Amino acid sequence: MTRPSEDALIARFFAPLATSAGADGLTDDAAVIPPGEGDLVVTKDMAIAGVHFFPDDPPGLVAAKALRVNLSDLAAKGAVPAGMLLGLGLAADWSVDWLDAFAKGLAADLDAYGCPLLGGDTVKVPGPLTLSVTAFGRANRTVRRRGARPGDLLCVTGTIGDGALGLVARQAERDPATAPGWLAALGEDHRRHLVDRYLKPQPRVALARAVARHASAAMDVSDGLVGDLAKMMAASGTGAMVDAGTVPLSLAAAAAIATDPALRIRALTGGDDYEILLACPPARLSSLQADAGAVAVPLAVIGEVTGSGSVTWSLDGQPLTFGSERFEHF
Amino acid sequence: MTRPSEDALIARFFAPLATSAGADGLTDDAAVIPPGEGDLVVTKDMAIAGVHFFPDDPPGLVAAKALRVNLSDLAAKGAVPAGMLLGLGLAADWSVDWLDAFAKGLAADLDAYGCPLLGGDTVKVPGPLTLSVTAFGRANRTVRRRGARPGDLLCVTGTIGDGALGLVARQAERDPATAPGWLAALGEDHRRHLVDRYLKPQPRVALARAVARHASAAMDVSDGLVGDLAKMMAASGTGAMVDAGTVPLSLAAAAAIATDPALRIRALTGGDDYEILLACPPARLSSLQADAGAVAVPLAVIGEVTGSGSVTWSLDGQPLTFGSERFEHF
Repeated sequence: MTRPSEDALIARFFAPLATSAGADGLTDDAAVIPPGEGDLVVTKDMAIAGVHFFPDDPPGLVAAKALRVNLSDLAAKGAVPAGMLLGLGLAADWSVDWLDAFAKGLAADLDAYGCPLLGGDTVKVPGPLTLSVTAFGRANRTVRRRGARPGDLLCVTGTIGDGALGLVARQAERDPATAPGWLAALGEDHRRHLVDRYLKPQPRVALARAVARHASAAMDVSDGLVGDLAKMMAASGTGAMVDAGTVPLSLAAAAAIATDPALRIRALTGGDDYEILLACPPARLSSLQADAGAVAVPLAVIGEVTGSGSVTWSLDGQPLTFGSERFEHF
Repeated sequence: MTRPSEDALIARFFAPLATSAGADGLTDDAAVIPPGEGDLVVTKDMAIAGVHFFPDDPPGLVAAKALRVNLSDLAAKGAVPAGMLLGLGLAADWSVDWLDAFAKGLAADLDAYGCPLLGGDTVKVPGPLTLSVTAFGRANRTVRRRGARPGDLLCVTGTIGDGALGLVARQAERDPATAPGWLAALGEDHRRHLVDRYLKPQPRVALARAVARHASAAMDVSDGLVGDLAKMMAASGTGAMVDAGTVPLSLAAAAAIATDPALRIRALTGGDDYEILLACPPARLSSLQADAGAVAVPLAVIGEVTGSGSVTWSLDGQPLTFGSERFEHF
């Protein structure tokens, strides 16, 4: 099939997604961000084929994940989606079919999250497919990493570790020789759950308003709970005590850890969770729990902020240490 | 020299540039865009080594150009800079020295244009150095491509064609075997002028407010005057009559064209001008000229918007046609 020019490509695949008046149908060099109340919060995450996703991941999921990791950042700041920009660097072997599936996946997510495409840039790259998403959100109060105070309770949404274990499961799908023993021991449902959590993160957009209302500090868990908590406490000038036994696990992750207890460390230090870690004053916990319940987002208390400068983890009353294992894309 | 981690790299090279309160010192996952009056205009341009710039271009100029091409888009929409995000994809061979010079060049421009660094993302890419700049501006009135009306006068700032001829001159600096005859015939001052115009675009930020005040339609000239004018007229549903003899040329470009008259076509269709093309109702021309004069931006009238659907060019009273020659990065 003939590959369209840049303008034709934009008109065909992306102009239909640019439903905001400020995008001007993607016929201009710039967009006007829709006006609104509260802080305008912005975040930007790049995603490179072979680094942040597998080149043969389904294109619709590649688009969705590139958007969702940004929406996860916004939600953790208390911001609901207001729009996005797409930087698309197409590799030499790009195909119309691939782009069609990519645009369909993006369209479904933009619609689901109420996040119009405002603009972007499309170029060819003499390297791997490169995505650069900029996402905007509105927050009544922007919640920072640095606001935690001693005595605050530490909470996380959902379950931790599925993304990191799902990466292993996804690698094994592509190359069965890489499958570790614990994976073979898992049932197919559990394997599928882990792969899906890796490929299809579920940003906690629904919790954004509750974060803005109640959290003293928050961030999304993308580089591993242990490392991200350490960053949040460092930014706040605080420490923390965390009981690893209270960190929520999915049935799949729990089954994997039952088979290979060392995987608990992987679950706690791995990345790609896209859950929200937050600190909350004790007096606000019940209101936060009620708000989370109202939007059906599971929330667990895992520890407490302390005045010390260090984060200490325990499991079954014993100290838990992590060495230097940490997931880092960079 | 040891290469720092992502966090250390950000703290060392980029946190000092994040002077806006909303950037929170680049210690968070998201930024708050400074509030302000008027439309918040946003644009995004990617720049890839080997595609949009030469890998051995001076790093400070690579940074400056990546920012300036975005500020040029904003200025043409009537918007003055309000901040920027930097997506930085470092190739495997990146060095601390390169990044240091890159950050210094960026810092100088952020300061000169009053455009604080708000945030971004830093990743490693298994491909060429990749930049993705998102720039924000404020406009009292956002000027679109689509607002031109029959009878409006067409104007351009500065001089046209230096960027396209400068690309040839820059290529010849790197590989003298590529130097065409006309370049050898130019004096060194003229060659230097052309190379500088290619490496160091001068976005017409100073004219932004006048564009917002007077222009019915505008865009920056980045893909060649002929093609960009055709786009603006198509978006406006209008045609145009343009006298190529009135398109302003630098002394260097005029000398090159005197040596090789075919270069006029290259000058009119080449890219990288980063001047502003605008349409202006005749009754507003003198006010526009006064405002442009007040900020020392040269402005020339080159033609008129017509009710026809086509753009016709003439030179010395004869029709001028361009075939399909058009500069396209994509």
